[in-house]
Amino acid sequence: MNPPPNITDPLVLFMPSGKRGRFPKGTPVLDAARQLGVYVESVCGGRATCGRCQIEVQEGQFAKHKITSSLDHISPVGPKEERYDRVRGLPEGRRLSCSATIEGDLVVDVPQDTVINAQVVRKDADTRHIERMPAVQLCYVEVEEPDMHKPLGDLDRLKAALVRDWGFDTLDADFHLHADIQRLLREGNWAVTAAIHRDRDTERPRIIAVWPGLKNEAYGIACDIGSTTIAMHMVSLLSGRVAASAGVSNPQIRFGEDLMSRVSYVMMNPDGREAMTKAVRQAVSELVDKVCAQGNAHREDILDSVFVGNPIMHHLFLGIDPTELGGAPFALAVSDAVSCRADDIGVELNRGARTYLLPCIAGHVGADAAAVTLAEGPHRQDRMMLIVDVGTNAEIVLGSSKRVVAASSPTGPAFEGAEISGGQRAAPGAIERVRIDPQTLEPRFRVIGSELWSDEPGFADAVSGTGVSGICGSGIIEVIAEMFLAGIISEDGVVDGALAAKSPRIVQTGRTFGYVLSDGEPRITITQNDVRAIQLAKSALYAGTRLLMEKMGADRVDAIRFAGAFGSFIDPKYAMVLGLIPDCDLDAVSAVGNAAGTGARMALLNRSHRREIEDTVRRIEKIETAIEPRFQEHFVNAMALPNKVDAFPNLARHVALPERTQSPDSGASGAPRRRSREERAARRSRS
Amino acid sequence: MNPPPNITDPLVLFMPSGKRGRFPKGTPVLDAARQLGVYVESVCGGRATCGRCQIEVQEGQFAKHKITSSLDHISPVGPKEERYDRVRGLPEGRRLSCSATIEGDLVVDVPQDTVINAQVVRKDADTRHIERMPAVQLCYVEVEEPDMHKPLGDLDRLKAALVRDWGFDTLDADFHLHADIQRLLREGNWAVTAAIHRDRDTERPRIIAVWPGLKNEAYGIACDIGSTTIAMHMVSLLSGRVAASAGVSNPQIRFGEDLMSRVSYVMMNPDGREAMTKAVRQAVSELVDKVCAQGNAHREDILDSVFVGNPIMHHLFLGIDPTELGGAPFALAVSDAVSCRADDIGVELNRGARTYLLPCIAGHVGADAAAVTLAEGPHRQDRMMLIVDVGTNAEIVLGSSKRVVAASSPTGPAFEGAEISGGQRAAPGAIERVRIDPQTLEPRFRVIGSELWSDEPGFADAVSGTGVSGICGSGIIEVIAEMFLAGIISEDGVVDGALAAKSPRIVQTGRTFGYVLSDGEPRITITQNDVRAIQLAKSALYAGTRLLMEKMGADRVDAIRFAGAFGSFIDPKYAMVLGLIPDCDLDAVSAVGNAAGTGARMALLNRSHRREIEDTVRRIEKIETAIEPRFQEHFVNAMALPNKVDAFPNLARHVALPERTQSPDSGASGAPRRRSREERAARRSRS
Repeated sequence: MNPPPNITDPLVLFMPSGKRGRFPKGTPVLDAARQLGVYVESVCGGRATCGRCQIEVQEGQFAKHKITSSLDHISPVGPKEERYDRVRGLPEGRRLSCSATIEGDLVVDVPQDTVINAQVVRKDADTRHIERMPAVQLCYVEVEEPDMHKPLGDLDRLKAALVRDWGFDTLDADFHLHADIQRLLREGNWAVTAAIHRDRDTERPRIIAVWPGLKNEAYGIACDIGSTTIAMHMVSLLSGRVAASAGVSNPQIRFGEDLMSRVSYVMMNPDGREAMTKAVRQAVSELVDKVCAQGNAHREDILDSVFVGNPIMHHLFLGIDPTELGGAPFALAVSDAVSCRADDIGVELNRGARTYLLPCIAGHVGADAAAVTLAEGPHRQDRMMLIVDVGTNAEIVLGSSKRVVAASSPTGPAFEGAEISGGQRAAPGAIERVRIDPQTLEPRFRVIGSELWSDEPGFADAVSGTGVSGICGSGIIEVIAEMFLAGIISEDGVVDGALAAKSPRIVQTGRTFGYVLSDGEPRITITQNDVRAIQLAKSALYAGTRLLMEKMGADRVDAIRFAGAFGSFIDPKYAMVLGLIPDCDLDAVSAVGNAAGTGARMALLNRSHRREIEDTVRRIEKIETAIEPRFQEHFVNAMALPNKVDAFPNLARHVALPERTQSPDSGASGAPRRRSREERAARRSRS
Repeated sequence: MNPPPNITDPLVLFMPSGKRGRFPKGTPVLDAARQLGVYVESVCGGRATCGRCQIEVQEGQFAKHKITSSLDHISPVGPKEERYDRVRGLPEGRRLSCSATIEGDLVVDVPQDTVINAQVVRKDADTRHIERMPAVQLCYVEVEEPDMHKPLGDLDRLKAALVRDWGFDTLDADFHLHADIQRLLREGNWAVTAAIHRDRDTERPRIIAVWPGLKNEAYGIACDIGSTTIAMHMVSLLSGRVAASAGVSNPQIRFGEDLMSRVSYVMMNPDGREAMTKAVRQAVSELVDKVCAQGNAHREDILDSVFVGNPIMHHLFLGIDPTELGGAPFALAVSDAVSCRADDIGVELNRGARTYLLPCIAGHVGADAAAVTLAEGPHRQDRMMLIVDVGTNAEIVLGSSKRVVAASSPTGPAFEGAEISGGQRAAPGAIERVRIDPQTLEPRFRVIGSELWSDEPGFADAVSGTGVSGICGSGIIEVIAEMFLAGIISEDGVVDGALAAKSPRIVQTGRTFGYVLSDGEPRITITQNDVRAIQLAKSALYAGTRLLMEKMGADRVDAIRFAGAFGSFIDPKYAMVLGLIPDCDLDAVSAVGNAAGTGARMALLNRSHRREIEDTVRRIEKIETAIEPRFQEHFVNAMALPNKVDAFPNLARHVALPERTQSPDSGASGAPRRRSREERAARRSRS
């Protein structure tokens, strides 16, 4: 135990954590950080050789903290730091906290963006800061040589050195090290770097890898196994920087486009599960090659890995038969987080590398949803946040720090462009943005691969490579929402055949009407069936959301997050016009891209995030929409555009919704008066 | 926490542990045992189906314990016990402690020799009682079926059931179970037996195997890997009984007869280490087949394993290069106990089976010596105990509960019959017992394979199969001791050529004389060189012992244990006459056979013995004879018979030692007067 701090000792404040304490003069800054639980990386154990423990001193008066920090309050640069600066270079203002000592009150900045020894600096889509406390730590030690008087084994002397220099109580060691330790210690001339794995605090720390001499970099991978795409980041466990990112199509697609067809494949083929497990593991292995090549690293440099995926991807990756997930009661084989060795899942990394899979929330709400939850953190804030991840199933999480609920809704593949006559995946040539003039009913649109609108000069040239080949998910949302706003379809989703007289865009197909969005080759028509397919999908999504809101006793949400690829491209306004999501301040609605990947990175870089999401998932109340009597009712109410019951006061500030043709069943007393098509047109032309 | 016991509650005393406590009437006896930490096996979790928790009530007044126990003080046999008795049979007087409740003061006997469900009952050489607290425990549970409202995974519901019924706080599970758990739970109709591994108390318990329904037996193996012989016991982890025992020659012999030649083989052959590792693991695997066949079990029934061996065997078995052990500083790669999965060492048992290797004491004092120490327990008693395990190296442990020291001495192979002109391994035809008439100098002897002495009628017929082929270790000890007692060799080990005039048994060979022990074919002569070889060996052993005694400040030992095969056959009296061991009450000198195997079984059946030997080995003071200046001095002093310095008061009560020809250097003031050859002959003829 440390002696109690003396009130006359200097006060040290660490930023950005805000942790503070008093320490006797002469205390190394690194020791102070350790005692306060401020995570400052260090590999060399205070020898001033690894350069990982850099800090900066902030000068000035910090009134709020009642502290005056000055460069005079830290020891002058000593010989060890001078040597490091000479050999490796120390950026201006930076100090090595293992060598610099406290000599007065200090405000110490722990640079969280430190990119030390970085050869490649990548800009990642999500540059959020993740405080580091990885499950794997590098520890350099000098080990006593063998001594006949104290016949401890090589491994035991290594452990003793780690206990002595790094404060471990006791350590285990991976079995494979027993055979290698002699060579490693002698190659390193009795100085080695050990990688120590400790995930849970209650776990005995474990030596999982050893290198001769000083090893100053180690990586982890964070991987999101989607049913369509597998995405991987390679991240420095020491600096947190993303060293490489890569993606690949999920090769399981050849066994079945969507999840249910893959489950069917397993049910109908004795080797189906094995083949799909092999395929996904092979793809992951190829991604490892890619990120290693990109980040100039070797597989042996990768010591930890985190994987997320929906329950079926999760099970197949682990080698578990997903058949049970194909029907009620949708029983997961394992729901809690899985910790194992990378070896166990056949991914070749460092021989001692570990693997962690986030927990699954329910049979349809997987580790990917858990990762999104971890990334967006509804449980970390007071406002009511709705997270939707739209795929063939929409995974929905709603809650705040008080309580979190989750469900999945069977949206089907319409949002992904399937079941839509002109639908296609989001790829060059696909219509992604649509505007319809409410007066003329003429459309203009943009396609993926060009920044030009279809009515702008040069559009035809710009898309000559791909043509206008179809319409993707975000385009479908927009065109149907615009058709609704332009009065082409009614609140109930019926294409108004009477308009055929006014515009050649309205055409009859069989007994119903459609809207010709593009009359090139192929001709892209939004049919009545297309509208119905989207209505079904959005009703399912909305009914799930509504059910959760009801469970929570919430009549509104404060923030909405669209996770996943689909969410990245849709315009929240149009999503709201269609009634995919409840009314909300549009500024509080945003797409969060691959939040599952971000959650995986968080779990990779900070083991406390693992406990956080494990605890959160245990607390999440799981709602199974299939057996909730109210779901069907919500579903029916949600078929209308935006829907039959809810008010959209926030949305109404941005768009003029058509008048409701029927009075709402309930709760819509606050709904704005719906204007006529003409009024709306006038209003829009102003905005 | 339990409420504090009420003084009016019945008092229950458990035997043989002597643990006691007060419990409210109606408490199941099993619960009382658990609360007191008395280990009573139970697999079914109190369902009265496994029958493992049997106890007996002792009737009568136990004055010493101030308790009167009566059969009236336990609940009458209830319907569950009646059912068990009907179906499986309950021995007279036995009760199921999960069902029988405390109704008054009780003395409860926990039968430690219980052989329940035993199909084979074997008498093992060492029938010592080992209190059971194995690292692996079987737990039967009924698991909740999947529920859409509580979408916990199968494995998670299994864990929850184990937490609920068996009081675990939290559990991990081996990775391979993730893929199997669906099938296992459904096959068992949601009732399964889980094998839980927990070695250290600080470790999270871990599910390592699962069977559908009730599984009521599980085994462990305890294996001593000797350089000559590998011996294995298969033991029930539930009852402690030895279900099978088998042995096989160590196939590494083809790479080198003794340890050093095996190390040389590794040094000279690039694949030498691998070949020897493979050979020993293959032999172990064959032994597993043997014990399974003998014990009517399957490999999957084996859940735990303990191995011991000298450092070189230990390293080769683990796949570690033993070269470092071949020269100073004799550095072990690992000295502490090794815990791993049986998979890791390539031994195919149950997929989740674990392996434990006892710690090595020093570079020449291995896990086998640790096992012997555990079995004989010098650290558990107050008297000063000497343990010697004689092989090419003698491993010597000396100590008491206060302090333990250990060393090895380079005895060389003479005791094993090598380097002796007529020497051979202990096998039929080898002379193992020798008597020499001090008057006539005529010998008589016995050979392995016959109970007859060579001067008894029928001896020639009895040994006609093998003849008298040579002399083994115990025979060499006896013949040289008898030659000394008969005056054929002097205190200094010189064969007295003058006696050639008296007896044709004394023959000249070159410049020295020898003694013809057997004049058949082959003629077996004990040469001067043979005597010298034994003198060198015994001096090394004795010098090691003396060094340890000196370190301990001990001038005598209270008990001596000979471990290993060699020790099983030698007569302690002759060992003492030759001066292999210091003087000691002959009644306190005994051979303990395969004590290493016993120690391995103890570590298998009771994990607290693992902690005990780990702690003991850490505390043992290791003496490296090679660098101890005093060793050489002791060695020189010990060359004489029995030796030059010590008194042998205990031995002198049994045999008449020849007079010392030189006055002892020191410390022999208490030595008895040495008698002349004639006096001695007269004395012996009386005894």
